[in-house]
Parts: sequence; C-alpha cells; structure tokens
Amino acid sequence: MKIICGTSNPELCKEIVKFLKIKPADILIKTFADKEIYVRIKEDVRGKDVFIVQSTNSNDNILELLIMIDAAKRASASRITAVIPYYGYARQDRKAEPREPITAKLIANLITIAGANRVLTVDLHAPQIQGFFDIPLDDVWAFPIFVKYFKKENLDNLVVVSPDAGGVKRALHLTKRLDADVAMIHKKRSEHNKIDEMTIVGDVENKNVIIYDDMIDTAGTICKAAEYIKELGAKKVFLCATHALFSGEAINKLKECKADKVVVTNTLPSIKNEKIEVIDLSYLIATAIRNIHENRSVSTLDKQLLEQPNSE
Amino acid sequence: MKIICGTSNPELCKEIVKFLKIKPADILIKTFADKEIYVRIKEDVRGKDVFIVQSTNSNDNILELLIMIDAAKRASASRITAVIPYYGYARQDRKAEPREPITAKLIANLITIAGANRVLTVDLHAPQIQGFFDIPLDDVWAFPIFVKYFKKENLDNLVVVSPDAGGVKRALHLTKRLDADVAMIHKKRSEHNKIDEMTIVGDVENKNVIIYDDMIDTAGTICKAAEYIKELGAKKVFLCATHALFSGEAINKLKECKADKVVVTNTLPSIKNEKIEVIDLSYLIATAIRNIHENRSVSTLDKQLLEQPNSE
Amino acid sequence: MKIICGTSNPELCKEIVKFLKIKPADILIKTFADKEIYVRIKEDVRGKDVFIVQSTNSNDNILELLIMIDAAKRASASRITAVIPYYGYARQDRKAEPREPITAKLIANLITIAGANRVLTVDLHAPQIQGFFDIPLDDVWAFPIFVKYFKKENLDNLVVVSPDAGGVKRALHLTKRLDADVAMIHKKRSEHNKIDEMTIVGDVENKNVIIYDDMIDTAGTICKAAEYIKELGAKKVFLCATHALFSGEAINKLKECKADKVVVTNTLPSIKNEKIEVIDLSYLIATAIRNIHENRSVSTLDKQLLEQPNSE
Amino acid sequence: MKIICGTSNPELCKEIVKFLKIKPADILIKTFADKEIYVRIKEDVRGKDVFIVQSTNSNDNILELLIMIDAAKRASASRITAVIPYYGYARQDRKAEPREPITAKLIANLITIAGANRVLTVDLHAPQIQGFFDIPLDDVWAFPIFVKYFKKENLDNLVVVSPDAGGVKRALHLTKRLDADVAMIHKKRSEHNKIDEMTIVGDVENKNVIIYDDMIDTAGTICKAAEYIKELGAKKVFLCATHALFSGEAINKLKECKADKVVVTNTLPSIKNEKIEVIDLSYLIATAIRNIHENRSVSTLDKQLLEQPNSE
Amino acid sequence: MKIICGTSNPELCKEIVKFLKIKPADILIKTFADKEIYVRIKEDVRGKDVFIVQSTNSNDNILELLIMIDAAKRASASRITAVIPYYGYARQDRKAEPREPITAKLIANLITIAGANRVLTVDLHAPQIQGFFDIPLDDVWAFPIFVKYFKKENLDNLVVVSPDAGGVKRALHLTKRLDADVAMIHKKRSEHNKIDEMTIVGDVENKNVIIYDDMIDTAGTICKAAEYIKELGAKKVFLCATHALFSGEAINKLKECKADKVVVTNTLPSIKNEKIEVIDLSYLIATAIRNIHENRSVSTLDKQLLEQPNSE
Amino acid sequence: MKIICGTSNPELCKEIVKFLKIKPADILIKTFADKEIYVRIKEDVRGKDVFIVQSTNSNDNILELLIMIDAAKRASASRITAVIPYYGYARQDRKAEPREPITAKLIANLITIAGANRVLTVDLHAPQIQGFFDIPLDDVWAFPIFVKYFKKENLDNLVVVSPDAGGVKRALHLTKRLDADVAMIHKKRSEHNKIDEMTIVGDVENKNVIIYDDMIDTAGTICKAAEYIKELGAKKVFLCATHALFSGEAINKLKECKADKVVVTNTLPSIKNEKIEVIDLSYLIATAIRNIHENRSVSTLDKQLLEQPNSE
Repeated sequence: MKIICGTSNPELCKEIVKFLKIKPADILIKTFADKEIYVRIKEDVRGKDVFIVQSTNSNDNILELLIMIDAAKRASASRITAVIPYYGYARQDRKAEPREPITAKLIANLITIAGANRVLTVDLHAPQIQGFFDIPLDDVWAFPIFVKYFKKENLDNLVVVSPDAGGVKRALHLTKRLDADVAMIHKKRSEHNKIDEMTIVGDVENKNVIIYDDMIDTAGTICKAAEYIKELGAKKVFLCATHALFSGEAINKLKECKADKVVVTNTLPSIKNEKIEVIDLSYLIATAIRNIHENRSVSTLDKQLLEQPNSE
Repeated sequence: MKIICGTSNPELCKEIVKFLKIKPADILIKTFADKEIYVRIKEDVRGKDVFIVQSTNSNDNILELLIMIDAAKRASASRITAVIPYYGYARQDRKAEPREPITAKLIANLITIAGANRVLTVDLHAPQIQGFFDIPLDDVWAFPIFVKYFKKENLDNLVVVSPDAGGVKRALHLTKRLDADVAMIHKKRSEHNKIDEMTIVGDVENKNVIIYDDMIDTAGTICKAAEYIKELGAKKVFLCATHALFSGEAINKLKECKADKVVVTNTLPSIKNEKIEVIDLSYLIATAIRNIHENRSVSTLDKQLLEQPNSE
Repeated sequence: MKIICGTSNPELCKEIVKFLKIKPADILIKTFADKEIYVRIKEDVRGKDVFIVQSTNSNDNILELLIMIDAAKRASASRITAVIPYYGYARQDRKAEPREPITAKLIANLITIAGANRVLTVDLHAPQIQGFFDIPLDDVWAFPIFVKYFKKENLDNLVVVSPDAGGVKRALHLTKRLDADVAMIHKKRSEHNKIDEMTIVGDVENKNVIIYDDMIDTAGTICKAAEYIKELGAKKVFLCATHALFSGEAINKLKECKADKVVVTNTLPSIKNEKIEVIDLSYLIATAIRNIHENRSVSTLDKQLLEQPNSE
Repeated sequence: MKIICGTSNPELCKEIVKFLKIKPADILIKTFADKEIYVRIKEDVRGKDVFIVQSTNSNDNILELLIMIDAAKRASASRITAVIPYYGYARQDRKAEPREPITAKLIANLITIAGANRVLTVDLHAPQIQGFFDIPLDDVWAFPIFVKYFKKENLDNLVVVSPDAGGVKRALHLTKRLDADVAMIHKKRSEHNKIDEMTIVGDVENKNVIIYDDMIDTAGTICKAAEYIKELGAKKVFLCATHALFSGEAINKLKECKADKVVVTNTLPSIKNEKIEVIDLSYLIATAIRNIHENRSVSTLDKQLLEQPNSE
Repeated sequence: MKIICGTSNPELCKEIVKFLKIKPADILIKTFADKEIYVRIKEDVRGKDVFIVQSTNSNDNILELLIMIDAAKRASASRITAVIPYYGYARQDRKAEPREPITAKLIANLITIAGANRVLTVDLHAPQIQGFFDIPLDDVWAFPIFVKYFKKENLDNLVVVSPDAGGVKRALHLTKRLDADVAMIHKKRSEHNKIDEMTIVGDVENKNVIIYDDMIDTAGTICKAAEYIKELGAKKVFLCATHALFSGEAINKLKECKADKVVVTNTLPSIKNEKIEVIDLSYLIATAIRNIHENRSVSTLDKQLLEQPNSE
Repeated sequence: MKIICGTSNPELCKEIVKFLKIKPADILIKTFADKEIYVRIKEDVRGKDVFIVQSTNSNDNILELLIMIDAAKRASASRITAVIPYYGYARQDRKAEPREPITAKLIANLITIAGANRVLTVDLHAPQIQGFFDIPLDDVWAFPIFVKYFKKENLDNLVVVSPDAGGVKRALHLTKRLDADVAMIHKKRSEHNKIDEMTIVGDVENKNVIIYDDMIDTAGTICKAAEYIKELGAKKVFLCATHALFSGEAINKLKECKADKVVVTNTLPSIKNEKIEVIDLSYLIATAIRNIHENRSVSTLDKQLLEQPNSE
C-alpha cells in the first residue's frame, strides 16, 4: 500500500498516514512559472495498491489529481484509488437551466479516464453522484461524528433545520439519532414587497437549533438563516457542516454571525478559532483506506467507529 | 423522421403520432412461446431520424426497448432517440445500503451501449439521473400541466404536501406557481409505542391540500398520508403525480382512499374513473420530438405550451 | 470464491454449491409490486472471486443477472464470472431478414457493460457467439453426457438425425463417439400441393434414431420429426437436447409424441417423468467454476469427467 | 461520395467505379523497402461519404485497409464504409480448440477501432460474423448470380452437395431456387483401415451435381469430393463458390480435377480459363454502395438485381 | 456555425469572429466564490456546428474548456471543435524520467472524453501530439507569418539558431524559406569548472541571427542564448516564437535582453511594446474554422494565405 | 510467468528465455496456404503473467502479434505484456502531409484493442510514441550498450553526428557519456545547381566520427553521410544504430560503404560479418521482463546493467 498526498490538504493527509503508521510515498509536485503542474513519483509503485489523497476543491487540485493518477497508472500501479475528501463541483449535478453542463459528471469521467480504479469520498453532496461513476465508489458518512458531538453538548428541545428544501433528507440523519425535530427554510415571494423572503416550515421557538448542511461556502445564506431563526425565538443556534469551504468573506461573516457555534470537519484545510470547531476525521478516512486495502467492508465503518473509544 | 412505437403504451404513442400528423413506422414485435421478444422494423429507416417511444416500466419493456434500438442501429438509422415517458428503476439511483446496485445507472448504460444517441424523458425521479448519461438527455417537466389544472380548480388556502423529505423540492415547483404553502410528511419514531409514525412539518388545518409526488406506485403510503392529513383537519385533499404506476392493489386503495381526487398523466397506461383524472400529455412529448427533430430548443417548451390555447 | 445464485434455476445452483462444498453467498433478491427487481448482496464480496449463476431464459432473468453483476461490481468484487447455463436469445445471432436486431450480440454487450469479467456457458447455440464477447468465455460441452447415456442404452444400427440443416455439425459430435450414421431433415416444397414438407437426407429405416438438437422449445417441430421418422420405418426414436425450454404446450406434446424417450439436462428447471429423462450436469458446471477459480484448464474438462467414476 | 480503391483487387474496383460513373479518389499507396505501407489520400475528403474497397485476404491487405481508414478518419471524412468483398480469417470464427484466438472477431475489432463507421461484405463465411461488429454491416448475397447461371445451364436431376456439414444450410439457398435435391459429404472413420473416409448422405447417382461452398482455397478437398461423386455415378459435376482464393496449387488441381466446370465470382482477383468461369459481381457491390450512399435499402438488392436486364 | 469564446484570450476571439463576420455565441461564464467555474450557453446550439475557442494555458482554462464542451454536448450541438491556439502541457509529452505522467496525452484524453469531435491547434510543440488524439486534429503552422515578417526586414547573412537540440527541425522550416543557415545551441559540461555551459554548433559571427523556438516561457534561457550569440560576434539578434507565454519575470528579462527584437504572435494575450512585436494570426485561425465548417481543406491554408493581399 | 515467442526473431527470444532460465511456452504458429496465420497456445496460460515477444517489423508480424494477444486473452491470461523489441511504423508518427494516416498510433490502438495490458519496447523512434498508449509502456534504452562499446574502442577526438535534424537530441545521449562533440547533417538547396545537398553543421575534420541513428533501413542516406564526412577529412567513421532493418540492398551498400564499422544490436534478426558488429541485448530485455514480472523498477535498468560485470 502506498499513500500519495496531493497538495490540497497536507495536514489531513499527514494525519491519515500517521494513523496508518506508514510513510507517505515520496512524490515531487511543483508548479512551473507558467503555472503548469509537474508531478514525479519518486519511489517505485509498480504493482502497488496506490491511494491518492486529494480533494477537488479547485481547478488546480483537480488537474493535480488527474496528473498524479496518470503518473501512477504509467508507473504500473496495480490499483489506484482516488481518495477525495471533498468532491468539488458536486452542486453542478444536473441541468437546472437549459444548456448547462453537468460538471459533477464531467469530473467523474475525467477521474475515470485518467486511470483511477476506485474512488473514496466523504459526504457526497448528492448520493446519486455515486452513479456518475462506473468504477466502485465508497462514500463515507461523517454525520456520526456530529451525532457524537451534539450528544456531548447535551441539548434539550433540539431541532435540526435544513437551510433549503434539498437538504431535509440529510437533516433527518441527525434528527433520528438525536431524537430531534426537523424544520426547513425555503424562499417565498412575499406579497407586499415582491421579493423572495425566508420562510420556515416547522417550529423553532424556544428550541436549540442545528442548521445542518453538507458544506459552508461563503456562509452568506446560512448566517442569514441563523439570524432569522434567532428572530423567531430560538435559543442556541449551531451551524454544522462537513465541508468547510469558507470562500470569500466566510470567516468574517461567521465571526459576526448570530450563530453561537460553527461545527465542521477537516476534509478541507480550515482555520479553528473560539467560534469554529473543527473535528478531525482523518481516522475515518484512514480506516476506510485500510479496509479497502485489506478487502474488508467499508460500509460497517460508521457503526464500528462510533463504538471505538479512541475514534474521536 | 420515423416514430417507432413499442408496446409499453400504445395509446400514448398513437396520440403522439396523431399530433405529429405522421404514421408510426411499420414494426413487427412479437413474443415467442419461450417469452423471447422478436422485433423487425418492416420499413426502411436507413439514414432516418428515429424516435423509439417506450417506457421502461417492466423488464420486458426494457429489453424490448434495447432490442428495438439494436435493430434501428443495425438498420443504419442516422440518429436514434429513446423516448422514455416513464423511466423505470429510477428510485434505485444510489447505494442506500452496502452492496446494492445502482440500477438506474445500469439501465442508462444499457440504453447507451445498445446504440441510442439521445434520450427524452418526462419528470425524472431525480434530476441527477441526467448525469447518468453521457449522451444528451432532455427531461420534460409535466408540472405546468398540474399548475393549469389546479388553477382552474380555483382553490384557496392551498398547501402542497410532499409525502417524504426527498420530494420537498419538487413540491416547491407547484407552490411557486400556485401561490401555495408547503408542508412535508416524514416518519418519526414515537416515544410511547416505539414505532415509526407519520409526522407533518407545516400546517394543513382548514387548508386545501395537494399531496404531490412524481409517481403513485402501490398507493399505500400516499393514501395513509391523505388519511393523516384529513385527520389533521384539511379540507379537500388531492393526490397528484406524473406517473401512474398503480401496482398491486393501487386501484382499490385509491378508490377507498380519503383523498377527494387523484390527478395523474398518461405517461403510463392508466384507467380513468370518477376519482382518477388522467391528463393527456402526448402533445408535450410530441412537441419535444418535433423540436429535437428540427433542432429547436426543448427547454422553452413549458412556457410555450402553457401559452398555447390548444395545448390542453 | 463466492457463488451467487440467481432465481433462474435454484435447484441447479444448489447442486453446484453442494458439489463445491461451499455455501452460496447470502443475497436478497425480491420483486417489488411494480415488478422492479431489487438485489442486495448481504455479505462482503470485496476482493472476492465472484461467480453469478443465472440463465438468461427470460427478460426478468436477464435483468436480474445484470443487476447482480452491477451490485457485485460496485461492491468491489475482484472478478465477476457470469455463469449462464442456458444462454437465451441465442437463436437471434444474425440478421436473417433486413432490419432485424442481433439480440444475442446485444445481450453479450449488456453483460459486458454491466461489469462481468468472464463468462461460462453450456452448449452455446452457435459457437460463433463466443466471438460476440471480448471477455474470455468458456463454453462447456454437454454431449459427453449424452454419449455416456446412449452407450449404456446399447443401441445397434444407430442414426443421429439433425432436425434441420444448421444442426448437422452438432450431430456429428455424437455420431463419431457412438459409431453412428448421420441424417438430416429439411423442408422442401412439394410439387403437387405446394407446401413445405419434411424431407430426409439419409436413411433411417430399421434404425434406432436419436433426433439431436441443442434445445427443445415448444417441441412442435421435433415431435413432427419423430412422427415422420417413425413413418419411415425407424425402430426406437429418442429426442435429445441439452436445454429443456419446454415452452407453451411442450410437456403435453412430448407426452403424446411418437418418440420413445426424451433426454435432456437440467440447465433449465425441468420436470421429469417416465418419458423425460433429465440428466444432472451440475458437477460439470461446478468443476468448470472450480477450475476457473484455481486457474486450471477448462478445456480438458470433458475428457477428464468422462473418466471420473463419480461423474454421473 | 468518394470511392478509395485499395490494392487488393484493382480490376474489381475499376468495374465498381465505372458502374457508378465516378472516378476513384486519388490515392498514393506504396510499400517502402522495409515493407511498411505508406498511404496518402491525395484529394480532399473532408465531410465526404467515403467507401474504401479492400478485401482482407492477406495481412498486407488488412493493414492497408486499416491505414486507409485511419487516413480517411484523420482527413475528416464524414462517414467511412469499409467495402470488403472477401472477408478473410472468417473461418477462425470460434474457439474449436482450447487457447485458439477468434481471429475473425479480432479483425472486426481492428476495423472498428481504426475508424470505420460501417461495413459492406459479400457472402460472409458465417452469418454470425455480422454480430462481431457493433457498427452496421450489410452482407450482400451472391447466390442469385449462381441461380441465374445454373438456370441457363438447364440441368435436370440436379443435386446441390455441401462438401461438409457446416455448409448444408448454404446449399439449401440454391436447392430452393433451382428445385434441386440436397446432399452432404462428411468424413467418417472407416472400420477396416481406420482412416477418415468421405461419406455421402443423400443420393447423387445419375444426377447433375453442384458442389457448393463459399470459397475455394487450395481446391484439395473439393476436388476429392468431385472425384468421389463421379465414382458414385454422377453425371456432370460443377464446383461453385463465391470466393476464389485459389491458394497454393489450386489452379493446377482444378485443371486436373474431375469436375466439369468451376464457377466463381471476382470478389478476389482470379484467372479465367476454359474450365474456370468467373462471374463479375461488381454491379452488385456498386449498387449496394450507391444505395448506402443514398440511404436506400440494401436488403432488397438481390431481387431487384435479378430483375434488371443489364444486371449480368 | 457558432463560435463560443472562452475567457483565455478574448481579444483574439474578438478578431476571429470579426474576420468571420458573425457574432460570438451568447455565453455566461462566471467563477463562484469557491473558484468553481459556471458556464451556461445562453442561446440555442442544438444541431449547430460549434467551435469553442480556448487555449489551455492554465488549469482554470483547461477546466473551462472541458465544461464548455460538456455544456455544448448536452445541449445537442451537432459537432464540437475545440479551437486551442496554444496547447498547454505540451512539453510533458513523454516519460523523460521514471514515474512521470504524460500530461499532454492526459489533456488529449480529457478533451476527447468531454465530448469534442475535433481539434484545431496552432504550432503544436511536437507534431506527434497529433497522434495523442483519435479524433481529427488540424494543426495550423504559423511560420509563414514569420517568413513574411523577416523577408520584409531584408536581412543578409542570416542564421536561424535553435536554442536546443529538439528545435533544429523547426528551425529548418525558416532556413529553407529565408535562404539562411542553421545553427544550434546545446549544453555541454565544461572541462575546467564542471558546470554545463552553452555551446554552439554552427557559425554566427557577423551574421544576423534569429533565435527561433515555439514558445517563450520565462525568457531566461533564450535571453542567455541571445547574450552568448552576441558575444560570439553576431550582428542583429531576433527572438522569434509563436506562443508568448511570458511567465514570471519574462517581460522584464526581455526588456533587458541583448536581443534586438522579439517577434511573437497573439495565440496568447500578450503585451506589445517597442521591443516586442506581436503579429496577429486571427485570420489564420478564422480561415481554418471557416474551411472546417465548409468542409474545405485546411492543409492548403499556409500557401493560400501567404498569397492573399489582406492576410497580414 | 510465460514467455511466448513469435516468429519475428526466434534467436533473440531463445536468448531471452535462456537468460531467464525458463522454457518458452509451447505454441503452434503456422501459415495456411492462403497466408492466413493460425495460432494455438498449446499449454495452459490461465491466470499466468504472459509476455509475448514479437517485433512489428512486417505486416505479418503485426498480425501474428495481435492474434497471439487475442489467443492469450481468450485463454484467460491474467496479464499480457507485448514485448516489442523493434516497434515498426514508428516513423509514421505524425501527419507531415495532409491526409496522411498516423500509423504508429493506429498500431498502438490495435495492440491495445487486441488485449495487451502493457508494452515493453527498445529505443522507440520518438519518445512521444509512449503517449500513443494509455496502457503502461516501458521503453528500454540501448545507448548504454554503445557507450560501453565505444569506451572500449578508446577513440580520441570523438564527434557524434546525427544524420538529420530530428536525431540531434539522440546524439547528445552519446556525447555526454563519451565526452564527445556533436554535429548534424542536413539537406540544403545548393545555389548553383538547385538540388538538395548535404551540409554539415559542426566540425568533423581529423575527428573520429560516430554517425548515430535509431535504425538503419536501406543504408542509402547513412552511407552517403559517411562518404561526405570522410571527404570532410574525418578519421575513422562508425555507423551506429539500435535497429538493423537492413532492407533492400542494405547489406551490399554497407559492405561498400566508406564507414569503417557498423555497430547494431539484435532487436531484429541480423547478419554479422567482419564489418557489421551485432551486440546482443537479450539480457536487457530479459531483465526488464523479470523486473516487470516481479514488480521491480525497469527505469533503473540502464545504470544497473552498466555496472554488472556479466552484462555484455
């Protein structure tokens, strides 16, 4: 087994190899003056079971992933698993408007044509993205991590709020395990001033609220949701998401946000501060890698890890 | 242009060709004693733009579609469009449990390998299924038909209810055009008797309710939902769905159902009765076929048709 | 090694796993009310050498096979062999008429695109179907079983009759080992009443006759052939075929047929009675599976098995 | 439409373009000192409907065909049809022995990967070879030419003999139209000297005989068959085949052969003499090309041509 | 015909459409806060012959190209030509060291899998890159532009110098038309101080020199070459290259460079100043596009354009 | 591990298997009277790591290679490596003229579609041909063999001359290790008689010269180059190339050539005489095969072998 660390999240990758008690494969990745990426795997991977850890959260990272896969393929790796903690472009998973691309499928095709034999992801934006691939894909769920976190927080009167209609199903993952209620925000055209306004379906008054999504991007909408929910009389408000994109002014917005706490994971490199809690899930990915390598089931991982004392 | 009618819905196909003012292609489809399907296209389709109309609502229909595509390909059709009013197996669009197939993707691959050049569907169960294909796919939306229908019903205090979390987004399509509220049913484990019970998020008391889904299968859950909503004090309750699968005891269940009306379309062969309203959407499919053939946009179809006086 | 038993022939599959002294893989196969097949492999097959036993004698069985392959592929099986005792649609192996499909090739493509890595069949209708696949295919021949059977019958003056021109080559397999003569039936337009009449080339008077084909479907033609041959003065007449489709009224026709005995195998589920002899060839398939798994030759199987004392 | 003539049969190609009243495309084909083939299409074929006429009766011809296809593809031809009057390696269409290739399928794959969009052949050795391709293939039958020829010969008491079991079906094509009987030769191990001896099934005494096959290769077996049939008391014996391979000593063998006449076509370059009749079928191929180009049916060709006064 | 302009070189694209006297297709290209590219083609391209003009000189531009192709494919364009004035990553066209990728081939595969039907490039780094594609590729040569330029400069005693061994062949393109001599610089380990030093093969003393390459990247080596050649006694020194990458400190280096003049084209956006001459080749690309669209030869373009009065 | 020896170079293959201390796989290769190749692997290769040694220096050898690969694939080899000491058609690696094929890429596609999993070559004509494959390819360099050879010759004042512009880069491989100078021959149109004449760039007077190329084909140009260099006052002249094609009159030309010595390898069957030195590189290929089989690096081979005492 060889773990190749791309440059998208070196900290996470360092934790993964530490957990697996191996050294990462020696690789040279550099960017030329003209911005072309150059990759050379500096140790023999012929006949090896290669895992390439790289999120696809920027075009540079996508190309770097594809180039690393090509290098491993031509270096005769026996099997190449693309480990993609954050699968970018996932929101472009359908034609919502005419003549749009389906970029999430395009990326899937690129990864496959480059030579990956299998894929490992964490919390895909839509589960149907699994079907964009014809190679085996294991999608590891991060929500048990949040369940553990909020169980320790010991909150009563809990409501999990989806910030849009598409996320209600995801919210139910938490409500079931936390014995919480569910609510949903959607936009509705108000009658008097004819602009779209946030509306809630469900009740949050005097409740502790987790606004749960798969990712926090610019944090604009989710902070407005937090404010709206506070106005509706909620008690504590948590923002919770697996992928901390934190684009643009996100860090500042979160700082000034009405939410009491922001809980994310380290699938992407993230800053921590007194408001932002970053939960490490390297052991989750590392265990999945080990199970794949040893041909053991990945699907039982969640349960198994929740019971492990050292799994946090 | 040649329209080939499979056996899945001869009535719909007859309406489509009538609308297009052409004759369906002469085709022989028979089933041998051993249940093998035999197909022979009885007129020349060499260099023609061929549309094969066939829903994939049973394994026989799937095979028949694939065999017709193979026959058209080998007969040198210049382009083959699979027109699939109801795309079956669409609910198996992700691995929800370990070691499940993703049959909706498998079917997409089968259609492509058989030789289809493009696909036309109506109201795909999940929009991401578009991305299961690498050939162009046009998914025509049927909801404007329902908008027109319910506008004529002239209902006040309207709420559109999604029977599960996954359908809330679909429900918003109606609420926006009908100036309605949205609500959602989900299952929650009751505290005293520890079984899953229906719970509603949102308010239906004294409201007129449309329970809206993409398909009605055995009608079990949706009828329970209707009953539950009536118990909650709703006024009129409509069941509304594009695809009328009506499997097993569905017809009987719908007859005895607490809902006041069932509104579906004829993507699948359906019975009509005093309770079940079947809206014909052949003109929608026919217009999409004509536009594809003439290289005109399919995406503007909805708006265009809603404004057509004869579009009903 | 994992053996997955589809539902096409549970008895045969049971015999195969018994012979191999292993348990079949735990699998859930069910059909929903709307006739969609649902499959879930209930035990881990990651990295396993998986054999899926399923004949393709109906569209449901074909889809079930493809779905099982997809499930095994996505569950990361290391190799998937489709074991297809009876390969259906095999007679549609060429364009005999214009604008016909070549469904036997289509099925081959479907099996390949679903994810099978290799195929094992018994007595393919035409040996050229091997070339419809680009993945390795082992076709096991059942005729040594019939050679053994008829040697024990101890018949003198034996003639093997092919019921049509296409099967003469197959008949020679038997004649060589049984020291028999060959004859052939074909249809010829009679001069006086201008309809096609059976004609024989070769001599059957006072002979014991085996009418040999690869399959018995509705049994209509083969029973007429038996009658015709009896009229020509044959002694005993055996109907002999590998695949017992027995479609439509076949069982009744065989009962009333002039033939003395019907000898078939259990590639398909079959009834036995005093007239119909069903020879079990599970050990043939089981041995082929074992040899494939252990990377031993499959081609020497026939000879090897004929010499085995327990091979019957 | 552009016709590119390979070097396998320049005479035939000349006749084809003459029939079509067009000039062949200007092409440079040469062989370097090291035997590498060099091809350059010397006129623009961008967007053209290109037909490349080349039989695959030697490895050089196969490579030349593939290279011409590659050149046409890269020169942006809009459609490339490989016109292959004689499809070589066709007898290697199945694994008859373990670890044999299926070279006829390999060649099909080579032609497809090189970039052909469709294929036109004459009298494929086995009709199943059609299914080796996933691109459309039209196989034109030459037997009507022989029917016409033998009708003019005005022979009574006619028997068509297949020189082996595999060709009986082909023989029936002639018997039906010539109101002839059928017979078949096969090899049988003689009891006294234990070597394989020719045996006939059917009657040829005092008959006029056509020994009919798809090709004459070294002419060894077919001449022995002629001798055997003469010994059995036949009157006139004709050897008849579409493809005149005439390998090795074939010409001499045919000269000394007991057969009265040899009737072949010019799918391959052939010598004519007083014994060998070569029927030109360029108009058959030319008409098929024209029909393909004009999107007219190829399958009705036989009938159509038989009725044409100038079709001989 | 539709021309879609990517964002890699809007000025060039503007010139191309101006030359073609058409309007560019209406397209929305934006970058979200998280750096994901969003593309929507805002006008109907169904059945159109689409040309997408985009160089691949950064990872963002590559992804943008692929996404535009995907959008056009799913929007049912009849043919998609990727017009890539500068083909990036072209120098990574072989494994020079073990376990390197061949990124130039990877990019070719990405473009093909995204859905391009053909490719148009200008001065590919290595002509073999044509063979990385199986779709037709037209590579237009820019050197006639330089021939014209230097003919007007009217230089005597001209030598074209290749800055490395790999470029000598390219240099001969100019020498032939300019009646010049050729020389080559290579690196040689000096004996006394053991570092690699520039060495020239050929004579430049008292000559006018064109240092000719396909691209100027950081300009470091080429400026050292200019200095070295001046030291060797050259008269005027021109730097000449098709693709003006001008990475890093290139502009400054060129300003201080010993060369008298820098001559490049506008395949990439470039600054002009008193030292840097940028020759517009939009008419070359535009004419190639028009010829492709009209199925006329692209290969005769060079000659044809050199003779056109307005071609400059 | 199984080594299958094709017929292109039996001597070399014999040396390879001798070096590996194994027996070549038992294979039957014959050519029928009609020139079709027949192959049958006579021993079991199921699950084996198969290496097929065959140069592609004639169309017969190419077809034989493809057929052997097909046979091995259908016989269920676990991995097939095409070992191609001389990769023919390599000079047709780009479109130099319009409407040329890129035959080197075509051959790469043929090898891949036939079923090869990887390729091993020696001194590819252009390193970019590596990128014509998407399967892993190891190209072993032979130049260290020549370095060793010429070091022993102990020549002073050494110049390596490339016989054309394209080969200068290759020449530098030798100059670096032999501390030699480089020069290059190119063709230039002479001013007085207007024909192309050889011109040299660089100095060869009183030098020992190695004219170095990758292959010697008809030996015409290289012998003229030797003569020209002698006229320019060179001392000893060596012709040196990896691949000894020796087509047409090459042997005679070399005999009468002004060069003092010809040094080649045995990638192709070659005659040796007092002037022609043939260096055996079977151990190079054999070691590469062994390393591939044992998943060890092939790229370190050169260095490693140069240090081995027995490597010559």
